Amino acid sequence: MSQTKQTWLFKNPVYIVSTATVGGTMEQKSPYAKNFDYLFTSNYAGQTSFEQAEQALIEKACLLATQKAQWKLNEIDVFIAGDLLNQITSSSFTARNLNIPYLGIFSACSTSMQGLALAAQLVSSGASSSALTATVSHNCTAERQFRYPTEYGAQKPPYSQYTATAAGAALVSTSRHPVQITSATIGKVIDFNVTDPLNMGAAMAPAAVSTIRNHLNERGLKANYYDRIITGDLGKVGYDIASDLLKKDGISLNKEQFMDCGCLLYGDQKNVFSGGSGCGCAASMVYGHFVKELQEGNLQRVLVATTGALHSPMSVHQNKSILCISHAVSLERGDF
Amino acid sequence: MSQTKQTWLFKNPVYIVSTATVGGTMEQKSPYAKNFDYLFTSNYAGQTSFEQAEQALIEKACLLATQKAQWKLNEIDVFIAGDLLNQITSSSFTARNLNIPYLGIFSACSTSMQGLALAAQLVSSGASSSALTATVSHNCTAERQFRYPTEYGAQKPPYSQYTATAAGAALVSTSRHPVQITSATIGKVIDFNVTDPLNMGAAMAPAAVSTIRNHLNERGLKANYYDRIITGDLGKVGYDIASDLLKKDGISLNKEQFMDCGCLLYGDQKNVFSGGSGCGCAASMVYGHFVKELQEGNLQRVLVATTGALHSPMSVHQNKSILCISHAVSLERGDF
Repeated sequence: MSQTKQTWLFKNPVYIVSTATVGGTMEQKSPYAKNFDYLFTSNYAGQTSFEQAEQALIEKACLLATQKAQWKLNEIDVFIAGDLLNQITSSSFTARNLNIPYLGIFSACSTSMQGLALAAQLVSSGASSSALTATVSHNCTAERQFRYPTEYGAQKPPYSQYTATAAGAALVSTSRHPVQITSATIGKVIDFNVTDPLNMGAAMAPAAVSTIRNHLNERGLKANYYDRIITGDLGKVGYDIASDLLKKDGISLNKEQFMDCGCLLYGDQKNVFSGGSGCGCAASMVYGHFVKELQEGNLQRVLVATTGALHSPMSVHQNKSILCISHAVSLERGDF
Repeated sequence: MSQTKQTWLFKNPVYIVSTATVGGTMEQKSPYAKNFDYLFTSNYAGQTSFEQAEQALIEKACLLATQKAQWKLNEIDVFIAGDLLNQITSSSFTARNLNIPYLGIFSACSTSMQGLALAAQLVSSGASSSALTATVSHNCTAERQFRYPTEYGAQKPPYSQYTATAAGAALVSTSRHPVQITSATIGKVIDFNVTDPLNMGAAMAPAAVSTIRNHLNERGLKANYYDRIITGDLGKVGYDIASDLLKKDGISLNKEQFMDCGCLLYGDQKNVFSGGSGCGCAASMVYGHFVKELQEGNLQRVLVATTGALHSPMSVHQNKSILCISHAVSLERGDF
């Protein structure tokens, strides 16, 4: 019996056919605003509740990704999605409207890469000929569910993060496209006994480092094989911790090589505290910015390690720690 | 481009190495009580909250399945689990303690077969050399989260169901064992506009029928290919509706061929209303009873189509309908 193996290599080549990203009002002020395919001018997104708005975001991302590829929904074999809402309802209602066989997943803010890993695995192995994967977060639904309704005006510590109102979707198939999904590393749950649900960057940093390290070891790669190693939403606090932990593991990366979507999405805006977070933060930065950079040939190889905090309000009330996980997917430019 | 294909065929043979099931106090009165590997004598399962008890149930099922196979946890490549609690915390805390790379999934009461389908797919394709999949439900956590805390003594209509306090786990690998996992059909979300969250059997019946019909069509099989076609937790009300719908589709099955775990688990007990439900209902009946029947050669071929209602309390409060899904897995006795 061999030891646990975390990394999947996709021997039958599998590609990102198209991606789409959708955002809300804060995302209009992002330095990466131009990379969004659609930005709603109200966080209600034309709906009557924030939960309906969240569903509108993910659904629009899915439809745009499909349209950009000039595919029809009934040509897609499986839809893999998840979100932060209890019972991932935004994803499930979207699955109803898309009418595609559906696998619901939950990995908190690491959902985008769990979804992309599974999509690539199912397509590479031939189980599905194509897969659509998506995720979403909405600032107001996350605040209400995990913390306090925004209307209460609760004060926040400087290490807290701002949940992105954003969705991202990716369509995956074996048909040749510039960005190949070459491997994925499925994370273990890492618990550093952080109990403050506002300090998630610190809680998630060790999970990202564990997955990046195991990914490089299992693939026998040095870190500089990748032009970029990207985390999902550690924010400034978590990013610094992760940088230090990587250094201790002998993985020294400069600020050009190692980047965090949570630090990038809102640039220097002060009201996001330590940075962006939420499933939509990594999804919109990776599917909006980094995939485009790969498609255009500005980057050749990117490792994306999103991180998720797997707590619930109930587990926090019961004094349980903030469990974290990180799933990584490697995106490499094929020879086109 | 071909039309959507829902069914995965596992060409490289993959087997159930072992299963384990754990229950609570109501399950001791089940006609299938002897099939449980462990029955807690209190629904607190030695813990201080029902949520901790739920975690204790799934963790025990995982450890027992591993022990029965004489495997070690660090020989398992991936753990695939989900439950009904917000943010599937029972599964995630178990993943931390097992220390196995973890894929969190959510498919409500259809979680067991979504997990088994993914486990079989990952192992059959060679991505993982082995997989452990598990799910759990606890009557008191489900009542508190989805309906009213049990202590309130809320009255229930006769078509309501009783959430099982039970967990089931299955270990999957390519090493030859009597029960082979031969295929899986991933369900679409089906919405028949049922809005009463206590009437889930009726809501879920069309999803089960859709998946069973598509499974048979895509595999080119007649229903009598299977000795048993089993649904997860339709209960008496949902079972009768599903029987009628199957008949309308030209699939006539007698009460020996078509069975429902929700009707079976608690036998004739009156206080479960229409029958058992919850992720643990199907998991304990399938992994405890039907897999054993296959292992002992009393059954040759079984199709299990579990069903899940994908609503949340929030989606119900916002007047959304009860979305449903059904995933099916075929279990067939190899030539041993």
